[in-house]
Amino acid sequence: MNDLEARVILARITEPADARCGERVMAVGAPQVLDEIRAGHSPLPHAASLRIRLDAMPSLDDDIRRTHAIGARILVPGNPQWPSQLNDLGARAPLALWVLGEGSLRLLLLRSVAIVGARAATPYGEACARRMAADLAGDAWTVVSGGAFGIDAAAHRGALAAGGVTLCVLPGGIDVTYPRAHEDLLRRIAGEGLLVSESPPGCAPLRQRFLTRNRLIAAMTRATVMVEAALRSGSRNTAGEASSLGRHVLAVPGPVSSTMSAGCHALIRSGEAVLCRGADDVRELIEPVGAVVAVDRAPSRAEDALGPSARRVLDATPLRRPATVASIAVAAGITPVQVATAMIELEAAALVVPSGAGWRRAAMRSAG
Amino acid sequence: MNDLEARVILARITEPADARCGERVMAVGAPQVLDEIRAGHSPLPHAASLRIRLDAMPSLDDDIRRTHAIGARILVPGNPQWPSQLNDLGARAPLALWVLGEGSLRLLLLRSVAIVGARAATPYGEACARRMAADLAGDAWTVVSGGAFGIDAAAHRGALAAGGVTLCVLPGGIDVTYPRAHEDLLRRIAGEGLLVSESPPGCAPLRQRFLTRNRLIAAMTRATVMVEAALRSGSRNTAGEASSLGRHVLAVPGPVSSTMSAGCHALIRSGEAVLCRGADDVRELIEPVGAVVAVDRAPSRAEDALGPSARRVLDATPLRRPATVASIAVAAGITPVQVATAMIELEAAALVVPSGAGWRRAAMRSAG
Repeated sequence: MNDLEARVILARITEPADARCGERVMAVGAPQVLDEIRAGHSPLPHAASLRIRLDAMPSLDDDIRRTHAIGARILVPGNPQWPSQLNDLGARAPLALWVLGEGSLRLLLLRSVAIVGARAATPYGEACARRMAADLAGDAWTVVSGGAFGIDAAAHRGALAAGGVTLCVLPGGIDVTYPRAHEDLLRRIAGEGLLVSESPPGCAPLRQRFLTRNRLIAAMTRATVMVEAALRSGSRNTAGEASSLGRHVLAVPGPVSSTMSAGCHALIRSGEAVLCRGADDVRELIEPVGAVVAVDRAPSRAEDALGPSARRVLDATPLRRPATVASIAVAAGITPVQVATAMIELEAAALVVPSGAGWRRAAMRSAG
Repeated sequence: MNDLEARVILARITEPADARCGERVMAVGAPQVLDEIRAGHSPLPHAASLRIRLDAMPSLDDDIRRTHAIGARILVPGNPQWPSQLNDLGARAPLALWVLGEGSLRLLLLRSVAIVGARAATPYGEACARRMAADLAGDAWTVVSGGAFGIDAAAHRGALAAGGVTLCVLPGGIDVTYPRAHEDLLRRIAGEGLLVSESPPGCAPLRQRFLTRNRLIAAMTRATVMVEAALRSGSRNTAGEASSLGRHVLAVPGPVSSTMSAGCHALIRSGEAVLCRGADDVRELIEPVGAVVAVDRAPSRAEDALGPSARRVLDATPLRRPATVASIAVAAGITPVQVATAMIELEAAALVVPSGAGWRRAAMRSAG
């Protein structure tokens, strides 16, 4: 049994963020952890209940077939698409990830921001989330959220409306539409962005999985923006998770009379979050300062090493006035996801620079 | 010529916050500064223009008569009513203060909060100011502001509506109604609180005097709360003034789409101000922590030393459930200003404790 197979089985019989299991996996590897449970000599305190689940679970083949049937793929650490920042979660890192959608999870998360908040959001909060998501997504930032009603949905929709990339981390299995009313939205995200889950197909979106999902969103992204949150919400948890991982935490203020801004105000007042007025305040914290320096280190003919898709995107990117991902996608005749993915490669090679609300070609392109 | 007379003359011929003159006054005293100007051997670089003003000014007697004619009084350092915290301004401290109204300026400022903000305030900002002022004034805090349209007026009105004490620092002379439309409001403040100015009667509310007035408001009070401010307003100045004097600075957030909250958001984001949701957030910063400790140091029969007014207030203050200043004033048959003044004496003697939205008698009253 290989590592991926063992991880898929462990993901089915454990709950997300099971640190005891995660620690054992880090120590001896997933296949041996599974062998120990099977053979009845696992040191895990909950080994007996894991074994009961093991006996009751569908066959591994069925599980993997089901994943492929819906067009999804399974990622485990070591896969080139695995986002290495998840390692910051240590023993609470996901065992595996189910991904549905075209782009590379790792590359799309290199420039990513989480926009999250209350389900019972106000029109003000939804407008803030939509606008910030549109601004950031139009600037090739991947907008990550949880697909819920309210702020989450507004963030996804804002990113989609700007022709940008958005990523939804589901609280249940990758094939479990939750909430049901977001069937169309989730289908659009799968088509133009990515759906991600750490639970195997069919898993129900249980209450506790909302909290563990939040740790994943915080760990994946460079910054988490809380748009609206009631005082006694999970917002403090999410903020604490993000800042303990060294990620930036921001919160959007609102009227002091609004109970849906109370959680954000508490985070700002206590210094747990930085006040966020919009996309510019996010950029100020996370925009790579090294972008300009990188030009000096670029190989003289970096274009030679480009794949056909990146080449096409580079040709469609204007030299003087910046263009949005959406307009470059139209010009290049490919999807925004492909553009956003290519931009990461192109930026690393110092061939493009983010500029204003979009991208332009680096001025030194022909210097080599 | 005595110190008061010299200071009144200097106040008329200099602009407020004239640090060069202030420094000289600190060094040799006001009478000698004036003598030097008169005799033409003053070391002040602007002595010549001060002398021209001196020759043109009304007689000192006229000036003092004019003050008394409107029922105002003149305070200078050394007077028991002089608020000693103004010494923190150093050479920029006011030379003298003109005061109109019943209470002791020094005592009323011992528990004081400034609530300031934009003239072009929104209904949201005015509601915040009004409510916060009412909460604080009802809790025997003196609400200090500048009498301007918008936030200032809302703060004064909120304090008055709660039957509390409010203090207005005017940008011109104590007899110059500015703005004209606030004639009734200013008359009410003079009747139930205090009007204060550092400019002699008749002085016009010049533009530069608004800024120098702000330093006075910041220096007088324990905390300055900015309720609404545009991005390019004097708010940053006022906040900087307050925090350089060691006073607390707070700012009320609002919708990120509101230009009138932009100045507050900038202050909070940069850490120049603490986010303020209402009166409780102000109290948390400025409520004296020593209130409980003081009980142990109280003389056994502190009541014996009380004046008749304080005695009456103490008798009207309930032992168990706290009462507001307004309701104690009704019970004692005296004005809220008298109650607020008495409370300072009573609190210092540990006979009352601030509690919730009002005052109650200290539990150890009969211990001696």
